[in-house]
Amino acid sequence: MNPPFEVTILGSSSASPTKTRHHSAQFVSLDGSHFLVDCGEGAQRQLLLHGIRFSRIRYILISHLHGDHFFGLPGLLSTMNLGGRTEPLLIAGPAGLQGLMEQMLSASHVELKFELSYLITNPEASELLLETAQCSVHSIPLEHRIPCTGFIFREKTPLRHLNREACDEHRIPVSAYEALLAGEDFVQPDGIRIPNNVLTNPGRAPRSYAYISDTIYLPDLAKSIRGVDLLYHEATFMHDLLDRAVSTFHTTAKQAALLAHAAEVKQLLIGHFSARYRDTEGLLAEAQEVFPATAVAEEGLTFRF
Amino acid sequence: MNPPFEVTILGSSSASPTKTRHHSAQFVSLDGSHFLVDCGEGAQRQLLLHGIRFSRIRYILISHLHGDHFFGLPGLLSTMNLGGRTEPLLIAGPAGLQGLMEQMLSASHVELKFELSYLITNPEASELLLETAQCSVHSIPLEHRIPCTGFIFREKTPLRHLNREACDEHRIPVSAYEALLAGEDFVQPDGIRIPNNVLTNPGRAPRSYAYISDTIYLPDLAKSIRGVDLLYHEATFMHDLLDRAVSTFHTTAKQAALLAHAAEVKQLLIGHFSARYRDTEGLLAEAQEVFPATAVAEEGLTFRF
Repeated sequence: MNPPFEVTILGSSSASPTKTRHHSAQFVSLDGSHFLVDCGEGAQRQLLLHGIRFSRIRYILISHLHGDHFFGLPGLLSTMNLGGRTEPLLIAGPAGLQGLMEQMLSASHVELKFELSYLITNPEASELLLETAQCSVHSIPLEHRIPCTGFIFREKTPLRHLNREACDEHRIPVSAYEALLAGEDFVQPDGIRIPNNVLTNPGRAPRSYAYISDTIYLPDLAKSIRGVDLLYHEATFMHDLLDRAVSTFHTTAKQAALLAHAAEVKQLLIGHFSARYRDTEGLLAEAQEVFPATAVAEEGLTFRF
Repeated sequence: MNPPFEVTILGSSSASPTKTRHHSAQFVSLDGSHFLVDCGEGAQRQLLLHGIRFSRIRYILISHLHGDHFFGLPGLLSTMNLGGRTEPLLIAGPAGLQGLMEQMLSASHVELKFELSYLITNPEASELLLETAQCSVHSIPLEHRIPCTGFIFREKTPLRHLNREACDEHRIPVSAYEALLAGEDFVQPDGIRIPNNVLTNPGRAPRSYAYISDTIYLPDLAKSIRGVDLLYHEATFMHDLLDRAVSTFHTTAKQAALLAHAAEVKQLLIGHFSARYRDTEGLLAEAQEVFPATAVAEEGLTFRF
């Protein structure tokens, strides 16, 4: 069975929270790699409520410095510390985030007992932010009122499968299997090299998840996110408020769906809804008209793929 | 009917939130005067959930700079601003709070469109912080690991009642009633002065509410809070953890009750519970053994007196 690739929604509101929606935050998990993506106010309680242990989170990615995407960070760090955390933590986010967090923690007399490091994201170009045993994470430049990036998680290419018949035919010793699965050729004692692709078959396709935080509609994003298994895209407004979306550098549900269609993603997840929408039926219907495989980023839901 | 004096509990957890408890925050309301007292993370959503309009809050009082008492402030200010607030707002709190809030708001690109002023509390001596048409608010120095104050709200002395019989007897003209109710004597045309207390009777007793935030047990507080109608006092631990309470500068439920008893308050409200207590039955029972008129600061409850 494939290791689970999961996205749990902790918040789906835009700038103002509502009675039913918190500020942006998601828990992204691939086998042993666990990420918190954005950390709006209340994220720590949302993690608690959904049974996600803080100690699992090794990386926190912050898309931009609007409060609804990072005001939950000082509280989460404080509670992690109080809980006796020892695991190191890496925070990737815009320039300025580190200084701000250090001031908040110092003013509130928190002395961190775990290793915390920061990585500054580049809002101008896609960059490899980090690599774990399971996946890589690249930033994606977005266009919002302030510097902002999305993130794309790509599973590492899964191991190839042995071609047992070919291995037997070439009398490959069992001791060589591990090297074959890792992609190496087999060299016989007589010096003859048998190419890896003769002895193995490709594994399944690696999976990927793109998180597109606050941005004006960017059709060109299709290139960076082509074919991802799951695309989360903000959909702050419905399309009748396109003017408002443009002037505030946000996207409509229809535009998010157009991008999903153009990029041939497998599934679209819309979120970051304006507080004016009491329910999300209209937003979902509008997106599904263009791209049927759309779901709403309802808080508490976990998307597995 | 007396104007309502109300305290609504928005958070009752101590440093770590739990599945059922948020960080400290209370909405205190006396007729036209509305206060938010402490503003832990999530306070803005708690206000929303309990139907309290942000625009009613004119004063925010912050007891001390531990994150569980003020990390909700940047988010609340941002959302107030986004909601088009025009009413001025006064924040009273420890030195350092203003600079920190200004940095958080500036980093998150919030330009306040309403008037925000700050008042620095003195952790060493009780001071009059502010006066409204309905009440005064004084700080109360506490002893915590960092500078910390409580707050005491005292209703202004309610108007006296006319003694109709005496007024008739002395032929007081109706036009003089307002001055009498405001406490003035009546001077006859012939120069004879009739003392106010001959012509009026005292109104009802003014009401008072004391908010005692994080502190080690301070028996001497009884003097400052004597006879208040409602005393909120932190009760982070049960008394079997007295050592832990002392070393962390907190109070036990029993100690809070001892203080309520010594100060002859009318009702005690305990809160700020350690996350180790899943339910509050033990804390309540311990306090009620000493002071029966104790209630638990359950979130969402409003205490009227």
